[in-house]
Amino acid sequence: MKRVLLTGASGFVGAQAIAPLVQRGFEVHAVSSRERPAANGPGGSGGPARAADCGPELSVAADRDGVRDGVRWHRADLLMQDAATALVERVQPTHLLHFAWYAEHGRFWTSTENLRWVEASLRLLRAFGEAGGERAVMAGTCAEYDWSASGGYVESSMLAPRTLYGASKQALESVAQAWCEQVGISFAWGRIFFLHGPGEHPERLVPAVARAVLSGEPALCSHGRQLRDFLHSADVAGAFVALLDSSVAGPVNVGSGEPVSVAEVVRLVAAAAGDPQLVRLGALPAREGEPEELVGDVTRLHEQVGWAPRLTLAQGIERSVAWWRERREPGAG
Amino acid sequence: MKRVLLTGASGFVGAQAIAPLVQRGFEVHAVSSRERPAANGPGGSGGPARAADCGPELSVAADRDGVRDGVRWHRADLLMQDAATALVERVQPTHLLHFAWYAEHGRFWTSTENLRWVEASLRLLRAFGEAGGERAVMAGTCAEYDWSASGGYVESSMLAPRTLYGASKQALESVAQAWCEQVGISFAWGRIFFLHGPGEHPERLVPAVARAVLSGEPALCSHGRQLRDFLHSADVAGAFVALLDSSVAGPVNVGSGEPVSVAEVVRLVAAAAGDPQLVRLGALPAREGEPEELVGDVTRLHEQVGWAPRLTLAQGIERSVAWWRERREPGAG
Repeated sequence: MKRVLLTGASGFVGAQAIAPLVQRGFEVHAVSSRERPAANGPGGSGGPARAADCGPELSVAADRDGVRDGVRWHRADLLMQDAATALVERVQPTHLLHFAWYAEHGRFWTSTENLRWVEASLRLLRAFGEAGGERAVMAGTCAEYDWSASGGYVESSMLAPRTLYGASKQALESVAQAWCEQVGISFAWGRIFFLHGPGEHPERLVPAVARAVLSGEPALCSHGRQLRDFLHSADVAGAFVALLDSSVAGPVNVGSGEPVSVAEVVRLVAAAAGDPQLVRLGALPAREGEPEELVGDVTRLHEQVGWAPRLTLAQGIERSVAWWRERREPGAG
Repeated sequence: MKRVLLTGASGFVGAQAIAPLVQRGFEVHAVSSRERPAANGPGGSGGPARAADCGPELSVAADRDGVRDGVRWHRADLLMQDAATALVERVQPTHLLHFAWYAEHGRFWTSTENLRWVEASLRLLRAFGEAGGERAVMAGTCAEYDWSASGGYVESSMLAPRTLYGASKQALESVAQAWCEQVGISFAWGRIFFLHGPGEHPERLVPAVARAVLSGEPALCSHGRQLRDFLHSADVAGAFVALLDSSVAGPVNVGSGEPVSVAEVVRLVAAAAGDPQLVRLGALPAREGEPEELVGDVTRLHEQVGWAPRLTLAQGIERSVAWWRERREPGAG
């Protein structure tokens, strides 16, 4: 029996992990703290409580029922000292898939909450190990890499996080990796690149452009020449579940592996939203110090984990835009 | 008023920090948990409860008195969730000097306690910052460096800890550094090389040789060609206090900067103990994978902090051996 504890289960990525976990035969124990909704950054997770196709409404109902569609829901705030221990003792998971983190849009890069999540994640991992857990996978970020190095990143590329968020994730990875080796827990760490999907914060790239164009307003953008690595959140979650269900150890890039310019992403979003003419490249300044290229080499993910994305970039963007179209305020545009 | 919270204050290094702190005009608030005695490794601290020239007996008396010789003692177990917050609120320190860690001889390299001390140290730092603390200095280790690189280490040398202890210290450094920059706390991190002194675990190099020779027994050693960087614990503590009292930020090697062979150390110990003929180099196998040279470049410590050791290697070793001579069991040897 594979019994997984899934944290951040009502979040941006976590909510999308439920279906593939069930499909792969996991008994899913989904953990969520409904008191602390949060938005999402690049590589972020944990996400908004109101989010995701398969997410929040289900989880509320499920929480009342205890079990729904084969998923057991647990309400817990992992920042509380004893929460993880109590949870793990109750669930006795064989697997841990840890997405929960502080992900408030714009603030997550610098917030002190990053320290609290390092602490909470280590507590959770210790509890998991002490209860006999066998395999753990946690969510890392491309912000761990040295962004002054140009080109794509392999997992062994130099790590030199510029931000508290990146430093905190990398610190957790390093300690978790060393401890798991020590005590014989199989451990992997997925470094997430850029992502979009249902429930994303409305001010981030894909939603901002989609919302503008759906309202018939111009979408103001920077020059758009930055190369990025984008995946739909359902594919990110699918990759993590495949990783969890494998025996691959250590860091694994979770991305498309395909450099795509921000201009191309914006063009696809605007086209899906109905009017590519509304894009205004160059209307906003680029962020200072922004790297030209942030793209992951996904050879490990493809060859060792044996996973490939289900959605092309255009298909993913169509889905994200459709989600926003369905949620337009009545009478808007 | 400079008011310092000193953790691990009855430990191997911490106990030696009290006198120089007082000399430099700090109001010293010494923290100790008497319930968890521990021994010491290279770069280790926290140390045995029964330890140090100026340490435990004083601290016990001081604990009853509250204040002794200008030092305020506080008993607290920083591994407890709320201990740091309560302590910091009571003391309102401007400075933090953090030595406390798990340091049980032989076990500290691999123990799960390392995770708990990462958590506890981050909690302590957050509490210190939230209470308005201004400058923090913490104890790191030469075990953060990439030991496969030969030669001496400067602070910017590559970090690639081999052990859970080294990974945990490095993770703490990285998160603490990033957070302190964020919130405007001045932060430095001393990477300790090899040390010896009063209260050291009896099975470590200097005590083991001293005790054998003082008992008239042969001192069994490995080939002794390993080059190391040794300081007396009083000098290590003095360096940390000088660092705390400076505005130097970031990592700083705390060592002698002078490569000395283990054979030379052993010879000096045996000579101080009365009989260099009892040394048996080559009688024990060297540890597998042991680096040939672990020596720190101490330019930053000397030039930026403006600190130099008070004791030569021979003087330090004479002191350590004298400490063991005074503690020989009655009737022994």
